[in-house]
Amino acid sequence: MQRYRMTVAYDGTDFHGWQHQPGLRTVQETVRQSLIHTFAQPVQLQGASRTDAGVHAEGQVVHFDVDSRIPLERMAMAINARLPADIEVREVQPVADDFDATRDAIDKQYCYRIWNADRRPLGLRHQVYHYWVPLDAERMNQAAGRIVGEHDFAGFATAGHGRLSTVRTVHTCEVQRHGDQVHLTVSGSGFLYNMVRIITGTLIEVGRGKWPPEHVDRILAEADRRLAGPTVPPGGLCLQWIAYDA
Amino acid sequence: MQRYRMTVAYDGTDFHGWQHQPGLRTVQETVRQSLIHTFAQPVQLQGASRTDAGVHAEGQVVHFDVDSRIPLERMAMAINARLPADIEVREVQPVADDFDATRDAIDKQYCYRIWNADRRPLGLRHQVYHYWVPLDAERMNQAAGRIVGEHDFAGFATAGHGRLSTVRTVHTCEVQRHGDQVHLTVSGSGFLYNMVRIITGTLIEVGRGKWPPEHVDRILAEADRRLAGPTVPPGGLCLQWIAYDA
Repeated sequence: MQRYRMTVAYDGTDFHGWQHQPGLRTVQETVRQSLIHTFAQPVQLQGASRTDAGVHAEGQVVHFDVDSRIPLERMAMAINARLPADIEVREVQPVADDFDATRDAIDKQYCYRIWNADRRPLGLRHQVYHYWVPLDAERMNQAAGRIVGEHDFAGFATAGHGRLSTVRTVHTCEVQRHGDQVHLTVSGSGFLYNMVRIITGTLIEVGRGKWPPEHVDRILAEADRRLAGPTVPPGGLCLQWIAYDA
Repeated sequence: MQRYRMTVAYDGTDFHGWQHQPGLRTVQETVRQSLIHTFAQPVQLQGASRTDAGVHAEGQVVHFDVDSRIPLERMAMAINARLPADIEVREVQPVADDFDATRDAIDKQYCYRIWNADRRPLGLRHQVYHYWVPLDAERMNQAAGRIVGEHDFAGFATAGHGRLSTVRTVHTCEVQRHGDQVHLTVSGSGFLYNMVRIITGTLIEVGRGKWPPEHVDRILAEADRRLAGPTVPPGGLCLQWIAYDA
Protein backbone atom coordinates (compact mmCIF):
# COMPACT_ATOMS: atom_id res chain seq x y z
CA MET A 1 0.00 0.00 0.00
CA GLN A 2 1.18 3.48 -0.84
CA ARG A 3 -0.23 6.68 0.64
CA TYR A 4 -1.01 9.47 -1.84
CA ARG A 5 -1.70 13.14 -1.38
CA MET A 6 -4.11 14.54 -3.97
CA THR A 7 -5.23 18.08 -4.81
CA VAL A 8 -8.86 18.38 -5.91
CA ALA A 9 -10.77 21.35 -7.38
CA TYR A 10 -14.55 21.54 -7.61
CA ASP A 11 -17.56 23.71 -8.23
CA GLY A 12 -19.58 23.14 -5.04
CA THR A 13 -22.89 24.37 -6.49
CA ASP A 14 -24.47 20.98 -7.12
CA PHE A 15 -22.95 19.17 -4.10
CA HIS A 16 -24.21 18.77 -0.56
CA GLY A 17 -20.75 19.79 0.60
CA TRP A 18 -17.60 17.75 1.00
CA GLN A 19 -18.53 15.34 3.78
CA HIS A 20 -20.16 12.02 2.93
CA GLN A 21 -23.89 11.84 3.77
CA PRO A 22 -25.86 8.75 2.77
CA GLY A 23 -28.09 9.30 -0.26
CA LEU A 24 -26.76 12.78 -1.02
CA ARG A 25 -24.34 13.88 -3.74
CA THR A 26 -21.17 14.89 -1.88
CA VAL A 27 -17.68 15.66 -3.19
CA GLN A 28 -16.06 13.11 -0.88
CA GLU A 29 -18.23 10.22 -2.03
CA THR A 30 -18.00 11.21 -5.72
CA VAL A 31 -14.20 11.29 -5.54
CA ARG A 32 -14.14 8.04 -3.55
CA GLN A 33 -16.24 6.22 -6.15
CA SER A 34 -13.86 7.40 -8.85
CA LEU A 35 -10.87 6.07 -6.85
CA ILE A 36 -12.60 2.73 -6.25
CA HIS A 37 -13.23 2.28 -9.98
CA THR A 38 -9.81 3.57 -11.02
CA PHE A 39 -7.91 1.27 -8.65
CA ALA A 40 -10.46 -1.59 -8.54
CA GLN A 41 -10.21 -1.88 -4.76
CA PRO A 42 -11.83 -0.40 -1.66
CA VAL A 43 -10.51 3.09 -0.89
CA GLN A 44 -11.09 5.50 1.96
CA LEU A 45 -10.09 9.12 1.62
CA GLN A 46 -9.79 11.98 4.05
CA GLY A 47 -10.08 15.61 3.06
CA ALA A 48 -8.32 18.47 4.82
CA SER A 49 -11.35 20.75 4.86
CA ARG A 50 -15.03 19.91 5.21
CA THR A 51 -16.37 22.52 2.80
CA ASP A 52 -20.10 23.22 3.13
CA ALA A 53 -22.77 22.82 0.47
CA GLY A 54 -22.24 25.46 -2.22
CA VAL A 55 -18.62 26.18 -1.25
CA HIS A 56 -16.02 25.75 -4.02
CA ALA A 57 -12.40 24.60 -4.00
CA GLU A 58 -9.37 25.16 -6.17
CA GLY A 59 -7.06 23.30 -3.79
CA GLN A 60 -8.76 20.82 -1.47
CA VAL A 61 -6.20 18.23 -0.33
CA VAL A 62 -6.96 14.61 0.50
CA HIS A 63 -4.96 11.50 1.37
CA PHE A 64 -5.70 7.85 0.62
CA ASP A 65 -3.92 4.48 0.54
CA VAL A 66 -3.94 2.16 -2.48
CA ASP A 67 -1.93 -0.60 -4.03
CA SER A 68 -1.72 0.52 -7.66
CA ARG A 69 0.23 -0.28 -10.81
CA ILE A 70 -0.98 2.86 -12.62
CA PRO A 71 2.08 5.05 -13.41
CA LEU A 72 2.08 8.18 -11.28
CA GLU A 73 2.09 10.48 -14.31
CA ARG A 74 -1.15 8.93 -15.60
CA MET A 75 -2.94 8.67 -12.28
CA ALA A 76 -4.67 12.09 -12.23
CA MET A 77 -5.92 11.55 -15.78
CA ALA A 78 -7.24 8.08 -14.92
CA ILE A 79 -9.14 9.40 -11.90
CA ASN A 80 -10.45 12.43 -13.81
CA ALA A 81 -11.81 10.16 -16.54
CA ARG A 82 -14.29 8.86 -13.92
CA LEU A 83 -15.14 12.24 -12.38
CA PRO A 84 -18.03 14.50 -13.45
CA ALA A 85 -17.42 17.93 -15.03
CA ASP A 86 -17.70 19.78 -11.70
CA ILE A 87 -14.71 18.06 -10.04
CA GLU A 88 -11.10 17.81 -11.19
CA VAL A 89 -8.03 16.17 -9.73
CA ARG A 90 -5.16 18.62 -10.15
CA GLU A 91 -2.24 16.67 -8.71
CA VAL A 92 -1.40 13.28 -7.16
CA GLN A 93 1.86 12.52 -5.38
CA PRO A 94 3.14 9.70 -3.17
CA VAL A 95 3.74 10.65 0.45
CA ALA A 96 5.00 9.00 3.63
CA ASP A 97 2.62 6.59 5.37
CA ASP A 98 2.13 8.98 8.25
CA PHE A 99 1.05 11.97 6.12
CA ASP A 100 -2.35 13.22 7.25
CA ALA A 101 -4.11 15.76 5.04
CA THR A 102 -6.06 17.22 7.97
CA ARG A 103 -3.59 17.13 10.83
CA ASP A 104 -0.46 18.13 8.89
CA ALA A 105 -1.94 21.24 7.24
CA ILE A 106 -0.03 24.32 8.41
CA ASP A 107 -1.77 27.03 6.35
CA LYS A 108 -5.02 27.33 4.36
CA GLN A 109 -6.26 30.15 2.17
CA TYR A 110 -9.86 30.99 1.36
CA CYS A 111 -11.26 33.70 -0.91
CA TYR A 112 -14.75 35.18 -0.57
CA ARG A 113 -16.07 37.00 -3.64
CA ILE A 114 -18.65 39.77 -3.31
CA TRP A 115 -20.39 41.05 -6.46
CA ASN A 116 -20.83 44.69 -5.49
CA ALA A 117 -22.85 46.22 -8.33
CA ASP A 118 -26.43 46.90 -9.37
CA ARG A 119 -26.25 44.50 -12.29
CA ARG A 120 -26.91 40.86 -11.52
CA PRO A 121 -24.04 38.39 -11.79
CA LEU A 122 -26.24 36.03 -13.92
CA GLY A 123 -23.94 33.14 -14.99
CA LEU A 124 -21.56 33.90 -12.11
CA ARG A 125 -24.33 33.87 -9.50
CA HIS A 126 -23.23 30.60 -7.87
CA GLN A 127 -19.62 31.86 -7.54
CA VAL A 128 -20.26 35.26 -5.94
CA TYR A 129 -22.49 36.89 -3.33
CA HIS A 130 -24.50 39.72 -4.83
CA TYR A 131 -24.44 42.67 -2.45
CA TRP A 132 -25.97 45.86 -3.87
CA VAL A 133 -25.02 48.57 -1.32
CA PRO A 134 -21.70 50.20 -2.34
CA LEU A 135 -18.80 48.93 -0.23
CA ASP A 136 -15.67 50.85 0.75
CA ALA A 137 -13.04 48.16 0.17
CA GLU A 138 -10.24 50.24 1.71
CA ARG A 139 -12.21 50.59 4.94
CA MET A 140 -12.94 46.84 4.88
CA ASN A 141 -9.24 46.19 4.41
CA GLN A 142 -8.48 48.25 7.53
CA ALA A 143 -10.86 46.06 9.49
CA ALA A 144 -9.40 42.94 7.89
CA GLY A 145 -5.92 43.82 9.13
CA ARG A 146 -7.23 43.72 12.71
CA ILE A 147 -8.16 40.05 12.29
CA VAL A 148 -4.56 38.98 11.62
CA GLY A 149 -2.81 37.25 14.52
CA GLU A 150 -3.61 34.73 17.26
CA HIS A 151 -7.03 35.41 18.74
CA ASP A 152 -10.02 33.68 20.28
CA PHE A 153 -12.31 33.66 17.22
CA ALA A 154 -15.43 32.45 19.08
CA GLY A 155 -17.15 35.73 18.12
CA PHE A 156 -16.63 34.83 14.44
CA ALA A 157 -17.87 31.24 14.62
CA THR A 158 -21.14 29.36 14.56
CA ALA A 159 -21.31 27.65 17.94
CA GLY A 160 -21.86 23.97 18.56
CA HIS A 161 -19.17 22.21 16.58
CA GLY A 162 -17.41 20.87 19.61
CA ARG A 163 -13.92 22.27 19.13
CA LEU A 164 -11.96 22.26 22.39
CA SER A 165 -10.36 25.60 21.65
CA THR A 166 -11.62 28.56 19.63
CA VAL A 167 -8.16 30.13 19.45
CA ARG A 168 -6.78 30.27 15.90
CA THR A 169 -4.01 32.13 14.09
CA VAL A 170 -4.86 34.14 10.99
CA HIS A 171 -1.75 34.78 8.87
CA THR A 172 -3.15 37.19 6.29
CA CYS A 173 -6.51 38.91 5.84
CA GLU A 174 -6.97 41.37 2.98
CA VAL A 175 -9.78 43.01 1.07
CA GLN A 176 -9.30 44.29 -2.47
CA ARG A 177 -11.65 45.67 -5.08
CA HIS A 178 -11.40 44.23 -8.62
CA GLY A 179 -13.83 46.28 -10.69
CA ASP A 180 -17.35 45.36 -9.59
CA GLN A 181 -16.06 42.64 -7.27
CA VAL A 182 -14.69 42.90 -3.74
CA HIS A 183 -12.53 39.95 -2.68
CA LEU A 184 -11.68 38.95 0.88
CA THR A 185 -8.60 36.73 1.03
CA VAL A 186 -7.78 35.09 4.36
CA SER A 187 -5.20 32.48 5.33
CA GLY A 188 -4.49 30.83 8.65
CA SER A 189 -3.59 27.71 10.56
CA GLY A 190 -7.20 26.70 10.87
CA PHE A 191 -10.74 28.04 10.77
CA LEU A 192 -13.78 27.56 12.95
CA TYR A 193 -17.18 26.64 11.54
CA ASN A 194 -18.45 29.45 9.24
CA MET A 195 -15.56 31.67 10.36
CA VAL A 196 -14.68 33.07 6.92
CA ARG A 197 -18.33 33.69 6.11
CA ILE A 198 -18.91 35.53 9.42
CA ILE A 199 -15.73 37.59 8.99
CA THR A 200 -16.99 38.54 5.52
CA GLY A 201 -20.46 39.43 6.84
CA THR A 202 -18.83 41.59 9.49
CA LEU A 203 -16.50 43.37 7.05
CA ILE A 204 -19.48 44.09 4.80
CA GLU A 205 -21.11 45.98 7.70
CA VAL A 206 -17.86 47.93 8.06
CA GLY A 207 -17.67 48.52 4.29
CA ARG A 208 -21.18 49.94 4.10
CA GLY A 209 -20.52 52.25 7.05
CA LYS A 210 -22.51 50.64 9.84
CA TRP A 211 -19.46 49.96 12.03
CA PRO A 212 -15.94 51.44 12.23
CA PRO A 213 -13.01 49.09 11.48
CA GLU A 214 -12.28 49.05 15.24
CA HIS A 215 -15.52 47.13 15.86
CA VAL A 216 -13.53 44.02 14.92
CA ASP A 217 -11.41 44.47 18.05
CA ARG A 218 -14.48 44.38 20.24
CA ILE A 219 -15.78 41.15 18.67
CA LEU A 220 -12.36 39.56 19.26
CA ALA A 221 -12.15 40.88 22.84
CA GLU A 222 -15.66 39.87 23.89
CA ALA A 223 -15.77 36.67 21.77
CA ASP A 224 -19.52 37.19 21.40
CA ARG A 225 -21.07 35.98 18.14
CA ARG A 226 -23.96 38.45 18.56
CA LEU A 227 -21.56 41.37 18.04
CA ALA A 228 -20.46 40.17 14.60
CA GLY A 229 -22.21 40.48 11.24
CA PRO A 230 -24.38 37.92 9.46
CA THR A 231 -23.10 34.67 7.96
CA VAL A 232 -22.94 35.35 4.22
CA PRO A 233 -24.10 32.65 1.75
CA PRO A 234 -21.73 29.78 0.86
CA GLY A 235 -21.55 30.29 -2.92
CA GLY A 236 -19.06 33.18 -2.67
CA LEU A 237 -16.52 31.06 -0.81
CA CYS A 238 -13.62 29.14 -2.36
CA LEU A 239 -10.90 27.12 -0.65
CA GLN A 240 -7.85 28.22 -2.64
CA TRP A 241 -4.95 26.17 -1.25
CA ILE A 242 -3.68 24.21 1.72
CA ALA A 243 0.03 24.23 2.64
CA TYR A 244 2.06 21.48 4.32
CA ASP A 245 5.57 21.23 5.69
CA ALA A 246 8.04 19.87 3.16
CA MET B 1 -50.94 51.91 -25.06
CA GLN B 2 -47.25 52.62 -25.44
CA ARG B 3 -44.70 50.42 -27.19
CA TYR B 4 -41.46 49.75 -25.28
CA ARG B 5 -38.13 48.36 -26.38
CA MET B 6 -36.36 46.39 -23.64
CA THR B 7 -32.88 44.89 -23.37
CA VAL B 8 -32.67 41.62 -21.46
CA ALA B 9 -29.65 39.62 -20.24
CA TYR B 10 -29.81 36.01 -19.08
CA ASP B 11 -27.89 32.90 -18.20
CA GLY B 12 -29.48 30.34 -20.51
CA THR B 13 -28.28 27.28 -18.58
CA ASP B 14 -31.55 26.50 -16.81
CA PHE B 15 -33.91 27.57 -19.61
CA HIS B 16 -35.35 25.63 -22.52
CA GLY B 17 -34.30 28.51 -24.75
CA TRP B 18 -36.02 31.79 -25.49
CA GLN B 19 -39.15 30.67 -27.31
CA HIS B 20 -42.30 29.84 -25.33
CA GLN B 21 -43.09 26.12 -25.09
CA PRO B 22 -46.02 24.99 -22.94
CA GLY B 23 -44.92 23.45 -19.64
CA LEU B 24 -41.23 24.30 -20.07
CA ARG B 25 -39.21 27.06 -18.39
CA THR B 26 -38.40 29.50 -21.20
CA VAL B 27 -36.95 33.00 -21.06
CA GLN B 28 -39.81 34.47 -23.06
CA GLU B 29 -42.52 33.14 -20.76
CA THR B 30 -40.56 34.01 -17.60
CA VAL B 31 -40.14 37.62 -18.77
CA ARG B 32 -43.76 37.77 -19.91
CA GLN B 33 -45.05 36.65 -16.52
CA SER B 34 -42.97 39.36 -14.87
CA LEU B 35 -44.44 41.99 -17.23
CA ILE B 36 -47.99 40.75 -16.57
CA HIS B 37 -47.49 41.08 -12.81
CA THR B 38 -45.63 44.38 -13.04
CA PHE B 39 -48.25 46.06 -15.22
CA ALA B 40 -51.27 44.08 -14.01
CA GLN B 41 -52.54 43.52 -17.54
CA PRO B 42 -52.11 41.00 -20.36
CA VAL B 43 -48.83 41.50 -22.23
CA GLN B 44 -47.34 39.89 -25.32
CA LEU B 45 -43.68 40.30 -26.09
CA GLN B 46 -41.54 39.56 -29.09
CA GLY B 47 -37.81 38.89 -28.91
CA ALA B 48 -35.36 39.69 -31.68
CA SER B 49 -33.50 36.40 -31.44
CA ARG B 50 -34.78 32.91 -30.58
CA THR B 51 -31.78 31.74 -28.59
CA ASP B 52 -31.60 27.96 -28.07
CA ALA B 53 -31.57 26.08 -24.78
CA GLY B 54 -28.29 26.76 -22.98
CA VAL B 55 -27.46 29.89 -25.00
CA HIS B 56 -26.87 33.08 -22.99
CA ALA B 57 -27.59 36.74 -23.71
CA GLU B 58 -26.16 40.04 -22.62
CA GLY B 59 -28.33 42.03 -25.00
CA GLN B 60 -31.48 40.30 -26.19
CA VAL B 61 -33.99 42.94 -27.35
CA VAL B 62 -37.78 42.64 -27.11
CA HIS B 63 -40.77 44.89 -27.73
CA PHE B 64 -44.14 44.95 -26.00
CA ASP B 65 -47.16 47.26 -25.62
CA VAL B 66 -48.61 48.33 -22.26
CA ASP B 67 -50.64 51.06 -20.69
CA SER B 68 -48.58 51.91 -17.61
CA ARG B 69 -48.32 54.61 -14.94
CA ILE B 70 -44.94 53.35 -13.67
CA PRO B 71 -42.34 56.09 -14.25
CA LEU B 72 -39.89 55.07 -16.96
CA GLU B 73 -36.88 55.38 -14.64
CA ARG B 74 -38.38 52.82 -12.24
CA MET B 75 -39.69 50.40 -14.83
CA ALA B 76 -36.61 48.15 -15.19
CA MET B 77 -36.33 47.85 -11.40
CA ALA B 78 -40.01 46.95 -11.08
CA ILE B 79 -39.75 44.25 -13.72
CA ASN B 80 -36.48 42.90 -12.27
CA ALA B 81 -38.09 42.59 -8.83
CA ARG B 82 -40.28 39.84 -10.33
CA LEU B 83 -37.53 38.11 -12.33
CA PRO B 84 -35.40 35.19 -11.09
CA ALA B 85 -31.63 35.56 -10.54
CA ASP B 86 -30.75 34.23 -14.00
CA ILE B 87 -32.52 37.01 -15.95
CA GLU B 88 -32.08 40.77 -15.78
CA VAL B 89 -33.69 43.67 -17.58
CA ARG B 90 -30.93 46.10 -18.48
CA GLU B 91 -32.89 48.91 -20.16
CA VAL B 92 -36.43 49.93 -21.06
CA GLN B 93 -37.29 52.79 -23.42
CA PRO B 94 -40.45 53.98 -25.17
CA VAL B 95 -40.42 53.61 -28.94
CA ALA B 96 -42.71 54.37 -31.87
CA ASP B 97 -45.73 52.10 -32.33
CA ASP B 98 -44.24 50.56 -35.46
CA PHE B 99 -40.92 49.51 -33.88
CA ASP B 100 -40.39 45.79 -34.32
CA ALA B 101 -37.55 44.13 -32.36
CA THR B 102 -37.14 41.37 -34.94
CA ARG B 103 -37.74 43.11 -38.25
CA ASP B 104 -35.90 46.37 -37.46
CA ALA B 105 -32.65 44.81 -36.24
CA ILE B 106 -29.79 45.83 -38.53
CA ASP B 107 -26.86 44.17 -36.77
CA LYS B 108 -26.38 41.45 -34.11
CA GLN B 109 -23.24 40.29 -32.36
CA TYR B 110 -22.61 36.86 -30.85
CA CYS B 111 -19.58 35.58 -28.98
CA TYR B 112 -18.61 31.91 -28.72
CA ARG B 113 -16.19 31.03 -25.90
CA ILE B 114 -13.89 28.01 -26.17
CA TRP B 115 -12.03 26.85 -23.04
CA ASN B 116 -8.83 25.59 -24.67
CA ALA B 117 -6.84 24.05 -21.82
CA ASP B 118 -6.30 20.73 -20.05
CA ARG B 119 -7.81 21.99 -16.81
CA ARG B 120 -11.57 21.78 -16.55
CA PRO B 121 -13.58 25.01 -16.49
CA LEU B 122 -15.52 23.79 -13.37
CA GLY B 123 -17.75 26.74 -12.32
CA LEU B 124 -17.51 28.22 -15.83
CA ARG B 125 -18.52 24.98 -17.54
CA HIS B 126 -21.98 26.22 -18.61
CA GLN B 127 -20.47 29.39 -20.14
CA VAL B 128 -17.69 27.83 -22.25
CA TYR B 129 -17.07 24.83 -24.48
CA HIS B 130 -14.17 22.76 -23.19
CA TYR B 131 -11.94 21.78 -26.12
CA TRP B 132 -8.67 20.10 -25.10
CA VAL B 133 -6.64 19.96 -28.35
CA PRO B 134 -4.47 23.10 -28.65
CA LEU B 135 -5.94 25.62 -31.09
CA ASP B 136 -4.03 28.08 -33.26
CA ALA B 137 -6.16 31.19 -32.80
CA GLU B 138 -4.28 33.16 -35.45
CA ARG B 139 -5.00 30.48 -38.05
CA MET B 140 -8.66 30.43 -36.95
CA ASN B 141 -8.74 34.20 -37.34
CA GLN B 142 -7.51 33.88 -40.93
CA ALA B 143 -10.39 31.50 -41.65
CA ALA B 144 -12.81 33.81 -39.81
CA GLY B 145 -11.91 36.73 -42.09
CA ARG B 146 -13.07 34.68 -45.10
CA ILE B 147 -16.58 34.49 -43.63
CA VAL B 148 -17.05 38.27 -43.68
CA GLY B 149 -19.30 39.60 -46.43
CA GLU B 150 -22.50 38.62 -48.23
CA HIS B 151 -22.62 34.90 -48.90
CA ASP B 152 -24.99 31.98 -49.19
CA PHE B 153 -24.46 30.47 -45.71
CA ALA B 154 -26.45 27.26 -46.35
CA GLY B 155 -23.24 25.28 -45.74
CA PHE B 156 -23.08 26.76 -42.24
CA ALA B 157 -26.70 26.14 -41.25
CA THR B 158 -28.83 23.33 -39.92
CA ALA B 159 -31.38 22.71 -42.64
CA GLY B 160 -35.13 22.64 -42.27
CA HIS B 161 -36.01 25.98 -40.71
CA GLY B 162 -37.88 27.18 -43.72
CA ARG B 163 -36.08 30.44 -44.48
CA LEU B 164 -36.73 31.60 -48.02
CA SER B 165 -33.14 32.71 -48.52
CA THR B 166 -29.90 31.45 -46.97
CA VAL B 167 -27.98 34.55 -48.06
CA ARG B 168 -26.77 36.64 -45.14
CA THR B 169 -24.22 39.41 -44.58
CA VAL B 170 -21.56 38.96 -41.91
CA HIS B 171 -20.08 42.31 -40.89
CA THR B 172 -17.23 41.13 -38.65
CA CYS B 173 -15.83 37.73 -37.73
CA GLU B 174 -12.78 37.52 -35.50
CA VAL B 175 -11.01 34.97 -33.33
CA GLN B 176 -8.80 36.01 -30.42
CA ARG B 177 -7.03 34.10 -27.67
CA HIS B 178 -7.46 35.40 -24.10
CA GLY B 179 -5.20 33.21 -21.99
CA ASP B 180 -6.76 29.75 -21.89
CA GLN B 181 -9.83 30.91 -23.78
CA VAL B 182 -10.37 31.37 -27.50
CA HIS B 183 -13.23 33.70 -28.39
CA LEU B 184 -15.03 33.88 -31.73
CA THR B 185 -16.88 37.18 -32.17
CA VAL B 186 -19.24 37.50 -35.13
CA SER B 187 -21.71 40.18 -36.14
CA GLY B 188 -24.09 40.38 -39.04
CA SER B 189 -27.47 41.35 -40.39
CA GLY B 190 -28.93 37.99 -39.50
CA PHE B 191 -27.99 34.39 -38.77
CA LEU B 192 -29.35 31.05 -39.94
CA TYR B 193 -30.22 28.26 -37.51
CA ASN B 194 -27.06 27.10 -35.65
CA MET B 195 -24.92 29.25 -37.97
CA VAL B 196 -22.59 30.62 -35.28
CA ARG B 197 -22.16 27.19 -33.70
CA ILE B 198 -21.34 25.59 -37.07
CA ILE B 199 -18.91 28.40 -37.99
CA THR B 200 -17.23 27.81 -34.60
CA GLY B 201 -17.08 24.04 -35.12
CA THR B 202 -15.54 24.63 -38.55
CA LEU B 203 -12.95 27.12 -37.27
CA ILE B 204 -11.98 24.64 -34.53
CA GLU B 205 -11.11 22.11 -37.25
CA VAL B 206 -8.98 24.81 -38.88
CA GLY B 207 -7.41 25.73 -35.54
CA ARG B 208 -6.37 22.17 -34.75
CA GLY B 209 -4.85 21.76 -38.22
CA LYS B 210 -7.35 19.49 -39.97
CA TRP B 211 -8.26 22.06 -42.65
CA PRO B 212 -6.50 25.11 -44.10
CA PRO B 213 -8.24 28.50 -43.63
CA GLU B 214 -9.18 28.35 -47.36
CA HIS B 215 -11.53 25.44 -46.64
CA VAL B 216 -14.07 28.08 -45.58
CA ASP B 217 -14.20 29.34 -49.18
CA ARG B 218 -15.19 25.90 -50.41
CA ILE B 219 -18.02 25.58 -47.86
CA LEU B 220 -19.35 28.98 -48.95
CA ALA B 221 -18.98 28.16 -52.67
CA GLU B 222 -20.61 24.73 -52.51
CA ALA B 223 -23.13 25.64 -49.76
CA ASP B 224 -22.95 22.05 -48.55
CA ARG B 225 -23.41 21.48 -44.81
CA ARG B 226 -21.47 18.22 -45.01
CA LEU B 227 -18.27 20.14 -45.82
CA ALA B 228 -18.42 22.17 -42.58
CA GLY B 229 -17.41 21.20 -39.04
CA PRO B 230 -19.64 19.95 -36.23
CA THR B 231 -22.23 22.05 -34.41
CA VAL B 232 -20.57 22.94 -31.10
CA PRO B 233 -22.64 22.86 -27.86
CA PRO B 234 -24.91 25.81 -26.99
CA GLY B 235 -23.39 26.76 -23.62
CA GLY B 236 -20.42 28.60 -25.14
CA LEU B 237 -22.68 30.97 -27.08
CA CYS B 238 -23.81 34.42 -25.96
CA LEU B 239 -25.90 37.01 -27.81
CA GLN B 240 -24.00 40.19 -27.01
CA TRP B 241 -26.01 42.98 -28.62
CA ILE B 242 -28.54 43.88 -31.28
CA ALA B 243 -28.35 47.21 -33.10
CA TYR B 244 -31.22 49.26 -34.58
CA ASP B 245 -31.45 52.34 -36.76
CA ALA B 246 -31.80 55.53 -34.71
